[in-house]
Amino acid sequence: MLTYCVRKRLFLLSRETLKPSVSSVSPQQRRCESGGSMLELQHYISSGRAGRGSTYGPLGTELKRNVLQQWWAAVVSLKPEVFGISTPCSSIDGGTLRIVDGEALGEQLKDLSEAQLKERLHKLFQHNQSLRTSLLQGALEQFVPSLELIIRKLPFGLAETGLCYHPEPERSDTIGCFTEVTEASLVWFCSPRTSSQWLDYWARQRLQWWRKFALGPSDFSVCDVLSEELKEGASRGVKVLYQFPSGSETLETLWSFGDTKLLKTHHGSRAKLLCRDGRRSVVPHVLSVSANVDRGVLAFLFNSLQHVQKVDSKRRLYQRKVLKLHPTLAPVKVALDMGRGSTSELRQVCEGLLQEFLEAGISAWPGYLDTTYSSMESLHVKYDEMGVLFTVMITDSTLENGLLMVRNRNTTVKETMHISEIKQFLLKYISAAENI
Amino acid sequence: MLTYCVRKRLFLLSRETLKPSVSSVSPQQRRCESGGSMLELQHYISSGRAGRGSTYGPLGTELKRNVLQQWWAAVVSLKPEVFGISTPCSSIDGGTLRIVDGEALGEQLKDLSEAQLKERLHKLFQHNQSLRTSLLQGALEQFVPSLELIIRKLPFGLAETGLCYHPEPERSDTIGCFTEVTEASLVWFCSPRTSSQWLDYWARQRLQWWRKFALGPSDFSVCDVLSEELKEGASRGVKVLYQFPSGSETLETLWSFGDTKLLKTHHGSRAKLLCRDGRRSVVPHVLSVSANVDRGVLAFLFNSLQHVQKVDSKRRLYQRKVLKLHPTLAPVKVALDMGRGSTSELRQVCEGLLQEFLEAGISAWPGYLDTTYSSMESLHVKYDEMGVLFTVMITDSTLENGLLMVRNRNTTVKETMHISEIKQFLLKYISAAENI
Repeated sequence: MLTYCVRKRLFLLSRETLKPSVSSVSPQQRRCESGGSMLELQHYISSGRAGRGSTYGPLGTELKRNVLQQWWAAVVSLKPEVFGISTPCSSIDGGTLRIVDGEALGEQLKDLSEAQLKERLHKLFQHNQSLRTSLLQGALEQFVPSLELIIRKLPFGLAETGLCYHPEPERSDTIGCFTEVTEASLVWFCSPRTSSQWLDYWARQRLQWWRKFALGPSDFSVCDVLSEELKEGASRGVKVLYQFPSGSETLETLWSFGDTKLLKTHHGSRAKLLCRDGRRSVVPHVLSVSANVDRGVLAFLFNSLQHVQKVDSKRRLYQRKVLKLHPTLAPVKVALDMGRGSTSELRQVCEGLLQEFLEAGISAWPGYLDTTYSSMESLHVKYDEMGVLFTVMITDSTLENGLLMVRNRNTTVKETMHISEIKQFLLKYISAAENI
Repeated sequence: MLTYCVRKRLFLLSRETLKPSVSSVSPQQRRCESGGSMLELQHYISSGRAGRGSTYGPLGTELKRNVLQQWWAAVVSLKPEVFGISTPCSSIDGGTLRIVDGEALGEQLKDLSEAQLKERLHKLFQHNQSLRTSLLQGALEQFVPSLELIIRKLPFGLAETGLCYHPEPERSDTIGCFTEVTEASLVWFCSPRTSSQWLDYWARQRLQWWRKFALGPSDFSVCDVLSEELKEGASRGVKVLYQFPSGSETLETLWSFGDTKLLKTHHGSRAKLLCRDGRRSVVPHVLSVSANVDRGVLAFLFNSLQHVQKVDSKRRLYQRKVLKLHPTLAPVKVALDMGRGSTSELRQVCEGLLQEFLEAGISAWPGYLDTTYSSMESLHVKYDEMGVLFTVMITDSTLENGLLMVRNRNTTVKETMHISEIKQFLLKYISAAENI
C-alpha cells in the first residue's frame, strides 16, 4: 500500500495518516511492500519531528490544496446561500484539550504545597485556552451574527475549513493524545419540516462530489448510521465511506441535530434564533456535514493508483504504477523535459514555456533542470507515479520547426504538436475535465 | 478605526486582531467611533466564544482566502524553485506550549501525593505534544527530504501557510497565553556567498507584493532590524511595516540565519546537508521570510478604506465610506439587485445571471433576495462599504431589451450594458487588474 510513495516525500509521508494500515505493519512487511530498503521507507513515512498529524511533501501539499479548493468551490462558491466563516482553533471556554505553557507552569509550581498545587491545576483547566475537536461549535456561535446577513431566511449554510484535534487513546507517558486533522465543514440551517430531506440531499451531493474525482467511483459509498451509534443529540446520521485495502473508513459524516445544540449554544433564547420559513417563524434545525480532508486525500491517492501490466522491448513482463489522479486534482499538470542536443538553447525554450504555463495557472514540473541522464522510459515511469498529466519533450527539432512531443499519462499516446498550441491544449483539457 | 465594519460581522470581528487600537479604546469611545449603539459594536468585534485568534465573517473569510491565494501564487506557483509543504501544527519534541487533556489529568492527579504530582507534571512537559510558534522549524526538518527532489541544487525554497501560536504576556488566571496567527512562510536555502543579496531580493519582492494590492502604497515600507533587536542566530533582519493609524506594525519579517539553525536541526551532520553551488559543495544558508496574514488582511482593510465627501440632492454634505479593495482581493466582485416591477420574472433573470457569474468563478452577491425595500442610494452606500466592485441592476427594461445598469464602485459611474456582455466585461476587468 505504500508503493505509490516511491518518489521520496513527494506525497504525504506521515505515519498518522497512513495509520489504518501502517501501524499494524511490521518493519519486515514495510521493507517488502516498498520494494526498497528499510532506510528508504523510514524516509517516507515519518520524518525527524514526530507529529500527530500529516506531513505532506510538495505534491501532497498541492493535492490537498486542490481537494480543499474543489470542496470550497462546490459547497461555498457555487451556492449563494452558503457563507464561508473562519473561527479560531482555540477558545477559552469548553473543551478538555487545554494548552499550557510548560516552562512557566514548571516555574510557578516549584514552591507550592500540595493543596496549592491542586488548586492551581484546577484553575488551569477552568481558564486556559482549549482546542476545538470539530468545526460545528464555531458555526453555531456564528449563527446569530449571520442572521442579519441572510435576512433571517431559511435555508442557509455556514462553511469552514480548518484544523481540529481528535482525541486518541492515551499512551502511558502523556496525558491526552490527539491527532491533528483538517476538516471541511458545512453547517446547514433549515426548517424543521424539511431537515430530513435536506440530509438526504446533502448526502447525495457529497457522495457525488467524491465520486466526481474518482477513478473507481464504486469505492465510495454512503450508509446510514445505526441508531445505537448516533452521536449525542443527533436524530439521524449518514456516513460517506471509502473502501481502503485495509477496510472501510469514514471520509465524511452527516448529522441531523434538531434544534437542541443551537438552543444550548445561545442559552435557550428562542426569540433571537427565529428564522422565516415561508410565512412561519421557526427555530431552525441544524445539519452538520463534515469531511476529514486528510483521509480524503489518502482515499483519492489509493483510488487513483493503477497497476498496469506491460511487456518491455525485451519481452519481459513488468508492472507499472500510474497515479491516475483526476485532472483537476493532479498536483502537476505538465512536466517539461528536454532531449539531448544544444543544451543551452533547449533550456531557454524550456524556461520560456515553463513561465508561460505558470502564468496561465498550469502547474508545471521543470524536469529539464535535472541534468543527470534518464531514459525516456524511466522519465515516464517517474511521472506516471507522480500523477503528472502530460509530459512535454523539447528536442532539437523543436528549435527547427517548433514541434514538440506531448505524452498523455492516461493513454500513453504521444502526439506531435506545435509549441504555440500547447498552452491552449492543456487549458482546454483541464477545464473540460472539470466540467464533466 | 472600526467604522469600516459597519455591515455587521461581514469582515473580521475579533477583538484580538484589532488589538493594537481596540484594546485601548473605552466603551464610550467605541460607541462614538462606530456611530452606532454599543450593542451594535459588540456585535462586530467579539462574539460569544472569546478566542485569542481572529474570527472572520463571510467577507473577511473570502478576503483572507484571496490574500493567501495571492501569496501562494506569487511565492510558490510562479516560482519553479519553490515547493509547498504542509507540516503538523503540533509536535512531540520542542516548544513550551503543551497540550493537556484537562479532564484526564484531573482524574489522574486526584489521589497523588505532592512528590508524585510533581513528577507526573514534569513528565507531562517532557512528553506531551506542543504547538509551533513559527513555520521555520517544519521547513528546516523538511530540508533533507527535499534535497532529492531538487537534485541538491541551490537556491530553492520551501513554503507553507498555516496556524502558529504566538506567546503573549500572561494573565493572572492562566498559565501561558498566546494568540493564534495564520502565517505565510518561505524558507529560502541559498549559497553562503549570495545570502545577503537574496535577503535584499526577497525584501524588495515582498514589499512590491504588498504594494501591488494597496490603494496607498506608501503606507507599506521596509526597514532594517537594528543589530540589538536581531533574533537569536540571525545575522541580518528586514521588516515590512504598515503604518496603521495607531502606529507602525510589522507585517512580515525576513531573517538571514546562516547555517547554524539547519545544522542544529540535523544534529550537525554536514555531509547530508551539502548542496551544489556551481561546482562547489556547501551547507546552505537559511533565509526566513514570514508574514502575519491576519495583520496583513487588517492592513489591506485599513489601506483601502476611503472617506469620500459628497453633497446629496438636498445639498447636505455627508461622508461616504468606500472600501476600495484591489479587484483581486475584493471578496465580492458583483452585487445583483432588481428594481421594482414584475418580481417573479426579474427574479428569474437574477437567478440565471447569478448562476452564470458563480460558474465563471466571479463571486456574486444575491442582493435581490433581500425583499425589504432599499433606495438605490442606500444600496450603493452598503455595497461601497462592503467593497463590492460592481453593482448590476436588473429592471423591467432588462426584460424588454436585455439592457442592465452597471455601477462601478471606484468611479461611481453607471453604464448601460447588454446582459449578454456583462460576464465577459467583469472577467476582463478583474484579469486586467491582476496583471498590472
